Amino acid sequence: MAKLSTQSYKGARDFYPEDKRLQNYIFNTWKKVCEQYGYEEYTAPVLEPIELYTSKTSDEIVNEQTYSFTDRGGRTVVMRPEMTPSVSRMVAARRQELAYPIRWYSIPDCWRYERPQRGRNRQFWQLNVDIFGIGTVDADLEIISLANAIMKQFGATDEMFQIKVNSRKLINLIMSQYLELDANQAKQMVRLFDKKDKLKPEDFAEQAKVIFKDDQQKSGLEKLRILLNAQSLADLPEILRDSQAVKEVQVLFTLLGEHEVTAATFDITLMRGFDYYTDIVFEVFDLDPENNRSMFGGGRYDGLVGAFGVDPIATVGFGMGDAPIENFLESHNLLPKLQSTTDLYAITIGDTLKEAQDIVRQLRLAGVNVAIDLTDRKPDKQIKAALKMGVPNLLFIGEEELKHQKFIVRNVESQKEDTLSVEEIAKNVSTT
Amino acid sequence: MAKLSTQSYKGARDFYPEDKRLQNYIFNTWKKVCEQYGYEEYTAPVLEPIELYTSKTSDEIVNEQTYSFTDRGGRTVVMRPEMTPSVSRMVAARRQELAYPIRWYSIPDCWRYERPQRGRNRQFWQLNVDIFGIGTVDADLEIISLANAIMKQFGATDEMFQIKVNSRKLINLIMSQYLELDANQAKQMVRLFDKKDKLKPEDFAEQAKVIFKDDQQKSGLEKLRILLNAQSLADLPEILRDSQAVKEVQVLFTLLGEHEVTAATFDITLMRGFDYYTDIVFEVFDLDPENNRSMFGGGRYDGLVGAFGVDPIATVGFGMGDAPIENFLESHNLLPKLQSTTDLYAITIGDTLKEAQDIVRQLRLAGVNVAIDLTDRKPDKQIKAALKMGVPNLLFIGEEELKHQKFIVRNVESQKEDTLSVEEIAKNVSTT
Repeated sequence: MAKLSTQSYKGARDFYPEDKRLQNYIFNTWKKVCEQYGYEEYTAPVLEPIELYTSKTSDEIVNEQTYSFTDRGGRTVVMRPEMTPSVSRMVAARRQELAYPIRWYSIPDCWRYERPQRGRNRQFWQLNVDIFGIGTVDADLEIISLANAIMKQFGATDEMFQIKVNSRKLINLIMSQYLELDANQAKQMVRLFDKKDKLKPEDFAEQAKVIFKDDQQKSGLEKLRILLNAQSLADLPEILRDSQAVKEVQVLFTLLGEHEVTAATFDITLMRGFDYYTDIVFEVFDLDPENNRSMFGGGRYDGLVGAFGVDPIATVGFGMGDAPIENFLESHNLLPKLQSTTDLYAITIGDTLKEAQDIVRQLRLAGVNVAIDLTDRKPDKQIKAALKMGVPNLLFIGEEELKHQKFIVRNVESQKEDTLSVEEIAKNVSTT
Repeated sequence: MAKLSTQSYKGARDFYPEDKRLQNYIFNTWKKVCEQYGYEEYTAPVLEPIELYTSKTSDEIVNEQTYSFTDRGGRTVVMRPEMTPSVSRMVAARRQELAYPIRWYSIPDCWRYERPQRGRNRQFWQLNVDIFGIGTVDADLEIISLANAIMKQFGATDEMFQIKVNSRKLINLIMSQYLELDANQAKQMVRLFDKKDKLKPEDFAEQAKVIFKDDQQKSGLEKLRILLNAQSLADLPEILRDSQAVKEVQVLFTLLGEHEVTAATFDITLMRGFDYYTDIVFEVFDLDPENNRSMFGGGRYDGLVGAFGVDPIATVGFGMGDAPIENFLESHNLLPKLQSTTDLYAITIGDTLKEAQDIVRQLRLAGVNVAIDLTDRKPDKQIKAALKMGVPNLLFIGEEELKHQKFIVRNVESQKEDTLSVEEIAKNVSTT
């Protein structure tokens, strides 16, 4: 047999137990906050028909980044690049039977064929949170509050992150009414706004200039200058300030203030890649100057369920990837010390395996997670293995201990030792 | 936009919250028992290079059932049909650094292109449990005990399931020494043994007959008769009874008895589809006469890690799919009543949403999972939605309640109502 490679598929990670502990910490934090807000878990298959993504997900993703292939039955399928089309499909399938508002979350793995780099893998996990059936700002408030609560649950403070909020309705108004652009120009301008943070001001102006028609250029650039100087809703030009769109954003910010979402700030340049957003959009940014970038975001997309031939349903949601949050936790020193799920490692001294197995069995029945060393090696080698595995407590089982039914338990971190009965171990260790 | 189908990919299920609750119950039971035994969670990407499966997984799976395709970089990849090759790869990659014995578990989704039917989907989840580095029977004992403990944790009793145990070493001995078959004959006979339960005795004999060479037939069939009548190790023909293989199985059964794994029984006809098993194999059967079949199994496969060009490592493990256990729990009435993870559904009476939001926020901070109805509809409609979602408690928030800061909480099942402060709700509801 030829020697096989031990590498994982390019851009996809193996999760050894120490990696999985961290992933589980992130997943469990996500779950905890979502469930606090009354969201329930769902999931869908990683394979979906390609039609689900065509003209809904961004063109770049569908044409260049999908994992698509033909199955043995001739169906063209895709490994999902995102979850939103799947959840819309599920809601559409049971539109009549479901109770509203629907509050759902999921932590699917998604696949995109991109160049792997820090914070971006081909396989990634993404928390998806959505509320269906609420057309009022209360849903936007809840979703942004939930995103904020997740950041707080991870230990983040307002100095570490910012939630930029904008409105697609307002953007449309700016493009058509304020800048007086046609559909094609508007599309280019939105794209330019989207990459504004990556451009020097002079390059931005240069690129903006050519989007305008000749007779628009002068006034257009001046309008842009005024617009981009707006630090808050109050700074917007009057024609926008009096619009319904701005009033709705204003209401949202008042509510966010009441709900103590103090990291939220208005940003007129915030776009969002996906085409399906229809109103409020938001994006959460890392404020670390060395890593200042968008971590995740979402918004309202009222049209997607309707694409399945049923009446549309008001929807607000967001997606939050595992890699960006892992980087954030690392760079802000928010990673907790994670231990093995095994509470106790049983070390046999001398020929005690048979009796030790019995002690271990009693401990498990009492709810303690116990591994037992099954090798015949010297105790110090057994200890070394336990330490490498990150097990927090060691249990020593020798003949003397068995005679008295009292065993030494050593806490690895404090090096404190106690001599305890099986009952006492069960009581002590499961609470450490 | 053309109307899109709302169906999930054929043979793969959508998990709506009520389905996901059951899946989570199964996953959490698996996790709990594995962690009690000191096993730690890991995972690997669902995509693997096709070479990983060639000549290790069964030919049927690789040639006819894999989801394989070429990625945008020209690599031929497979959506894993099973986890064992991946975990062997991961162990081989860090063979030197890892601490032994390695005890790992994972709950990956796997994909096989088969005809979907009850208990068999194209996408399925499979608990994988493996111990690496122990060549003695203690590892077989531990893995079989763990499988037994999972069944017990699900509420199963010995009348409901049976653990059939056999030995590949013993099978090899039977084929070569006892039945005196050559390699090719042996392969056919193993396949025939494997499907014995599905054949009438006369058909089995007929098919066995043609495997023997003409001059072997009479004595061969007689030997087969003796062999298949063996109800226990003691009934085996003497030439087998004195072998090392049988002695090892005997030791295992003595230990299983001491560890109260009373569902274990010897079965000389138990094979196991995969080619990589090298010694003890076992399979867990549903004893329900209407559903009497193999649910899951495993065994020792000492050679797989070595296929990656490193020294081999003794390994014992098993895989347990979600669908067979779900069917088992259903048919034996072992499914628990599963509720929503949302503890409380807040129902607003009159124009109280703003104040209600504040109460809900306090409850969440106190650790209660609360959903709030954001519609303006009548309370009875709100109640109906909460019941449909399976939320166990209702919280009523009207103007009178807000004035006194005392709220009615109704338990849906008992219909009992209490009038409580926010603090009291937090104390009462999170313990129900």
